[in-house]
Amino acid sequence: MPSEFSISRTVEFSETDMAGIMHFANFFYWMESCETAFYRSLKIPLASFVPGQVLGWPRVRVGCDYRAPLRFNDTVEVKLFVKKLGTRSIGYLFQFRKDGVLCAQGEVTAVCVTAGENGAMVPAPIPEEVRALLKVAPESAWKA
Amino acid sequence: MPSEFSISRTVEFSETDMAGIMHFANFFYWMESCETAFYRSLKIPLASFVPGQVLGWPRVRVGCDYRAPLRFNDTVEVKLFVKKLGTRSIGYLFQFRKDGVLCAQGEVTAVCVTAGENGAMVPAPIPEEVRALLKVAPESAWKA
Amino acid sequence: MPSEFSISRTVEFSETDMAGIMHFANFFYWMESCETAFYRSLKIPLASFVPGQVLGWPRVRVGCDYRAPLRFNDTVEVKLFVKKLGTRSIGYLFQFRKDGVLCAQGEVTAVCVTAGENGAMVPAPIPEEVRALLKVAPESAWKA
Amino acid sequence: MPSEFSISRTVEFSETDMAGIMHFANFFYWMESCETAFYRSLKIPLASFVPGQVLGWPRVRVGCDYRAPLRFNDTVEVKLFVKKLGTRSIGYLFQFRKDGVLCAQGEVTAVCVTAGENGAMVPAPIPEEVRALLKVAPESAWKA
Repeated sequence: MPSEFSISRTVEFSETDMAGIMHFANFFYWMESCETAFYRSLKIPLASFVPGQVLGWPRVRVGCDYRAPLRFNDTVEVKLFVKKLGTRSIGYLFQFRKDGVLCAQGEVTAVCVTAGENGAMVPAPIPEEVRALLKVAPESAWKA
Repeated sequence: MPSEFSISRTVEFSETDMAGIMHFANFFYWMESCETAFYRSLKIPLASFVPGQVLGWPRVRVGCDYRAPLRFNDTVEVKLFVKKLGTRSIGYLFQFRKDGVLCAQGEVTAVCVTAGENGAMVPAPIPEEVRALLKVAPESAWKA
Repeated sequence: MPSEFSISRTVEFSETDMAGIMHFANFFYWMESCETAFYRSLKIPLASFVPGQVLGWPRVRVGCDYRAPLRFNDTVEVKLFVKKLGTRSIGYLFQFRKDGVLCAQGEVTAVCVTAGENGAMVPAPIPEEVRALLKVAPESAWKA
Repeated sequence: MPSEFSISRTVEFSETDMAGIMHFANFFYWMESCETAFYRSLKIPLASFVPGQVLGWPRVRVGCDYRAPLRFNDTVEVKLFVKKLGTRSIGYLFQFRKDGVLCAQGEVTAVCVTAGENGAMVPAPIPEEVRALLKVAPESAWKA
């Protein structure tokens, strides 16, 4: 029952902008990348579009604080913490560190949905087999 | 039966890279943007996911030549020409002009597909109602 | 001295993801797009890299709440409100509406910087000629 | 003097589109990602913005053929081959394989530039220390 997970990733040339730093929106792709790698590590899909088992996690709130810029070829640790685990929603906190220094911190709240009529997304309880694999990280883990 | 179409678009800050110019991959998004606006102008969808009428245009070949860079806030004309019209495929040529100067030229070949079993994409003849709205541009139009 | 500004924009095919909706990160590109159009309307550059006049607005905090999904070809109004105007920072609030319905609301806090030694970004007071063009929107404008 | 290089990469959720497959433009980011990893492996920067040593590789021509779609969570080998090595330009060929099957093949021609006056990009011979590290791959390598 992991409560945290991390990946290492290198800033691509295409992720920079004319200010010479990683464009701020790219941090959200990195958070999602860490989240999907986390789910792969748990052997459960982040999203399923198999009829009868449709499952998705649309975001209802995201945010990010930026403290120091990332640059081309920087190697960065992205660390995910399960911050909240509700009946139908999950909250993640992400930390971006370069050489141990916290450069950005983000949060994502996603709700579990399944497919309703006409392709509508209908909120659904987090499946038990998913919940069984998750644990909320103690505040001390990411407040360190 | 139009054979060409154009849009005007401005380079976004996020579309630049650390070299201070529009990243080369973004030209392909602009081509697609021009193509979808072309289809909207014809009142036909570029893609349909309505069951029973699934239609898509996956790309089988794309390319672009770059002659001059585009920069943040540049306003650019993107012009689409229907270059080839096959039974199941269509070829577009795109020209990017800034102040009348040709900065890039791209080509896209897409094939018409519909949905087969298990979500597979199956090549299909271009629907007659779509073909009826398209005309191949004379070479003189884009060789000018 | 405008305190608000809006653009209309259509969801591109490339902005959707396999869930069939606009990917959540794209809302941040749209906020930036609205912000740069706002600055163009004021005839001041959002960013300047002219030596001696280097000016930039790196983001220190961004966030977005999502209420309803946007889909391919949806036309959406993105409205910017100047929410806060500090000595060195500015806060924007953005609303995304489709057919008048609020689909998402975002916030961006940016700090004014100029170039220090070795390309470092150094916080700087917002130039007077920029500040003179901006006004904080009353809360009633975006709380409506 | 390597003439080829490869990386393994997994398709992100954000890289898919509403057709459920990796959007065609993303293949170009993956090519660039493989190219920059290749340069890191050679311990030379793909791009340098150090005054006096400004070096860049703007693309003059790119293209891609698509044979089979890539989907979310697919793990793909991207292989770079040095196809041509001119005085001022370099040509790469890239192959994308999933489970050994060729799904896409791309080509990129880049020219070496340095900084001229007013930030203009001026074509320049490929530096000797860079050229010394590169070798053209035999056609048999990628025609296999």
